[in-house]
Amino acid sequence: MPRRLDQLAINTATLGFQWPLERIVEACARLGIGGVAPWRRELTEVPAARAARLVRDAGLTVTSLCRGGYLVHRDAAERAARLDDNRRAIDEAAALGAPVLCIVVGGLPAGTRDLAAARAQVVAMLALLREHAAGTGVRLAVEPLHPMYAADRSCISTLASALDVCDAVGPELGVMLDAYHLWWDPELACGLARAGAERLLGWQISDWLVPTRDLLNDRGMIGDGVIDLAGLDRLVTASGHTGLVEVEIFSTDWAGRDPALTLRTCAQRYLALG
Amino acid sequence: MPRRLDQLAINTATLGFQWPLERIVEACARLGIGGVAPWRRELTEVPAARAARLVRDAGLTVTSLCRGGYLVHRDAAERAARLDDNRRAIDEAAALGAPVLCIVVGGLPAGTRDLAAARAQVVAMLALLREHAAGTGVRLAVEPLHPMYAADRSCISTLASALDVCDAVGPELGVMLDAYHLWWDPELACGLARAGAERLLGWQISDWLVPTRDLLNDRGMIGDGVIDLAGLDRLVTASGHTGLVEVEIFSTDWAGRDPALTLRTCAQRYLALG
Repeated sequence: MPRRLDQLAINTATLGFQWPLERIVEACARLGIGGVAPWRRELTEVPAARAARLVRDAGLTVTSLCRGGYLVHRDAAERAARLDDNRRAIDEAAALGAPVLCIVVGGLPAGTRDLAAARAQVVAMLALLREHAAGTGVRLAVEPLHPMYAADRSCISTLASALDVCDAVGPELGVMLDAYHLWWDPELACGLARAGAERLLGWQISDWLVPTRDLLNDRGMIGDGVIDLAGLDRLVTASGHTGLVEVEIFSTDWAGRDPALTLRTCAQRYLALG
Repeated sequence: MPRRLDQLAINTATLGFQWPLERIVEACARLGIGGVAPWRRELTEVPAARAARLVRDAGLTVTSLCRGGYLVHRDAAERAARLDDNRRAIDEAAALGAPVLCIVVGGLPAGTRDLAAARAQVVAMLALLREHAAGTGVRLAVEPLHPMYAADRSCISTLASALDVCDAVGPELGVMLDAYHLWWDPELACGLARAGAERLLGWQISDWLVPTRDLLNDRGMIGDGVIDLAGLDRLVTASGHTGLVEVEIFSTDWAGRDPALTLRTCAQRYLALG
């Protein structure tokens, strides 16, 4: 079955936040791209309810809101602040009509070295947030990040670990699969089967460049790297997932180019995946 | 039990290859450091048998030789060349008196995206090398590298995967545990228990810096980063391992400093690990 652009969504970080959300939505609609995944920073420029209308009126869907998380903490004050911020993020997702809030859990609390303790904090914090999520209908998608971010962004580095968190907390949770973070994992097929359509809440693509010059902002355009994205897409489909795929490319290169060019390239490369 | 420097070995890459092996061995002996792990490039300057004598006469031991591997290949010619080179590496390890040859298996063959196929090549190649290893008594230590090297250095990224390779090939194989590559892995304790003393052939330390500015050459001195090295050391001891621990720091910073300072710092930081 040939790929269709209405199965593609653009995570707005891919365009380097050069355009306001309204312009991104218009450009996506013109190309036939089916969805958009905004960031919270964009909702400071256009209120979530108005953003929801923009997207709906253009015939697009919101796949997810980026992002909540950073749940690890050093003390009670930081803990309370993180809980507040995540409750606000859940409310924003609900107002935006996003079915999913993407959660990047955070790495080691500053000055610590205990990954197991950090992971326990993540479970405890999500257990406190699940009721608020349930009240809004927004699902929380725990996103395992690449192990190179274990210290400073996510102490959850594998799909299996993220699913362990879901098991421990409850059905309001699920997982976000990002090819860039997990393509190397020999247990990925196993994790996808375990997740199933019920818990696989989103699926993001970009590519791993060789060489990679920067740990944060050197992701590749679809097809420019070594990830077998077509193969992963088959695994995701086999797991029962029917949602859109988000392109999320953090790249100094692409963030500096004309967003119209980046959008067209994403669309072409997605169709060419085969 | 307090730490003793005769339990510490220096992987010579830590000193940036500024000194010839003889001078490194003398300096280690003077400090009471117990072992050294040379690289093959150093054996082009001093023949392996003479290097073996140098080390022995100084009262040191060789923990391992770095390194064989890069077993993945695109065609029959590359395959034959890699087999030849690895047989030579095994012979050099034997001549050096190194009980272990460290194996970095290689990433994806150039132009490919199939990690499973690359891993199958690794198993097939090691199955061809095991007899040669058995004939010399040198064990082959498969070293899982950090997933950020999956494309270009090692398609084996976890201890579990490395042990799967050992299971598939035979008792000539074992694993090398490098804290830098595996500290983030939630299955690490499990993998160490599975390896046991019989298959854990070596153990290397350095530290993960936050931020990490370069994927290859920004490892930290012991204690300067976020890895719980004392905790990992307890896990390694619990697995039954009684060998020395190698300090292996790939770092543009440290490789540019006075090797005498680097050696003293390694010794002090190791003793301070607690």
